[in-house]
Amino acid sequence: MKSFAQRFLDLAESRSPFCLGIDPTPQLLAAWNLPHSAEGLAQMCETVATAAEERLAIVKPQLAFFERFGSHGIQVLERLIEAFHERGTLVLVDGKRGDIGSTVEAYAQAYLGPASAFRADAMTAHAYLGFGSLEPVFTHAVNAGAGVFVVVRSSNKEGVALQTAVLSNDGRTVADSLADMITEFNEQHSEGEVGPIGAVMGATIENLLPTLDRLPRSLILAPGIGHQGATFEDLRNRFERHAARAIPSSSRAVLDRGPSVEQLRDEITKQCEASR
Amino acid sequence: MKSFAQRFLDLAESRSPFCLGIDPTPQLLAAWNLPHSAEGLAQMCETVATAAEERLAIVKPQLAFFERFGSHGIQVLERLIEAFHERGTLVLVDGKRGDIGSTVEAYAQAYLGPASAFRADAMTAHAYLGFGSLEPVFTHAVNAGAGVFVVVRSSNKEGVALQTAVLSNDGRTVADSLADMITEFNEQHSEGEVGPIGAVMGATIENLLPTLDRLPRSLILAPGIGHQGATFEDLRNRFERHAARAIPSSSRAVLDRGPSVEQLRDEITKQCEASR
Repeated sequence: MKSFAQRFLDLAESRSPFCLGIDPTPQLLAAWNLPHSAEGLAQMCETVATAAEERLAIVKPQLAFFERFGSHGIQVLERLIEAFHERGTLVLVDGKRGDIGSTVEAYAQAYLGPASAFRADAMTAHAYLGFGSLEPVFTHAVNAGAGVFVVVRSSNKEGVALQTAVLSNDGRTVADSLADMITEFNEQHSEGEVGPIGAVMGATIENLLPTLDRLPRSLILAPGIGHQGATFEDLRNRFERHAARAIPSSSRAVLDRGPSVEQLRDEITKQCEASR
Repeated sequence: MKSFAQRFLDLAESRSPFCLGIDPTPQLLAAWNLPHSAEGLAQMCETVATAAEERLAIVKPQLAFFERFGSHGIQVLERLIEAFHERGTLVLVDGKRGDIGSTVEAYAQAYLGPASAFRADAMTAHAYLGFGSLEPVFTHAVNAGAGVFVVVRSSNKEGVALQTAVLSNDGRTVADSLADMITEFNEQHSEGEVGPIGAVMGATIENLLPTLDRLPRSLILAPGIGHQGATFEDLRNRFERHAARAIPSSSRAVLDRGPSVEQLRDEITKQCEASR
């Protein structure tokens, strides 16, 4: 089976690297005149999948907005993943999970690969409990041909202090040390140029290059395009030589165009072209 | 409505501070001769609730083990929360969630308080995206009479480097700065001595006192008892003057006694007494 990274890069070539974030906020449900319920959520997701057709390489549902409706919301997530797989689109579930031991292994069993409960292609993770604590997820990802995106630099200003704190034993920042450990793992576990562990790096952040230079073998998920203020142009300028491995992600800029299928389709097409 | 902290402290007084972790691992399902499915999970949870009766102040289901079975697993979680509420037991969902903006607000809407989807009494959160990024969860918790436990020092060794990294602008460690921000929030938002934001501090860690001293107004969730190697005695020694606000948590030491309801009941009783 082809690795997640290779499947993404092939699809990005034939479709576009643009990642549609699926963040069905309460405000969005209201703007679409949908009921504030799992049924409303299901209608929104169906409309988005219909509009997307086979245009997108990857989508990124934000788990919190499905968890909001309990098990009924999670059923909608299951259908959403199925609907996008039918369109040949990869699904990256964004839940920033992280824990230790059998718990973190359970997250991998829940989300990653065809034998998991949700059968997603990739997931996001956080490393507050240490990069090493995520090892069971990484191993599972390698075996299942799936991907993991570890948050290295988030797009919000509140994350700066922690992410740029300095490790007491070696002088590197938290973000840089994560980047180095990601690259070390990818070097050991990638068939091609790009390995199974990607990094989340907010497109809104200045001076990302020193950290990006430590991630030569990673896909870089870049949230913060659109509503949060960054443009595709910003991303190309900030990522420079790493822009070819970037996955620019935006949600509201597209979903605000609904519930019209035609307007959604046009906006998806526009974002796909702009991100190429 | 009484705050989560006050409800816990009252129950800890009349029952015990012991927190039963509900971590239904694949190994445990097998050991109980249960099918590896949502049905097996449901049977285990029902047996645990039956055995617990009204002995426990608080339980801590680990979300990953429910997510492993997709929406069917989440239905089991919903029933579990209901079953423990019927027994007057508080439910702390352990998912270490964290994100920004409307996403983190959505986690609060999913889990915290009687108007949420899961109606839990408290949840765990991580601050990799910054303490400030969790503000919507904290505010929601205050309004819903719920609690949030932020991971400050985890029980595993892989987390040490990040959690003891030093903020470049002020010389405090990541863990100490989180502790200070927790206390500042609690001072502004608590009716009594103890505020809505607790801290997760692994009972396995040495030299916790300097950080604990920065958390005078927090409940302290202390995982790592039992299987991970710490004892109730260790906890009392390591927490000293803070032990009265500790919530010692253990899962496997109890659940290994199943599927016998009698043996589970005896072990729960034993742990409740030992943790007093």
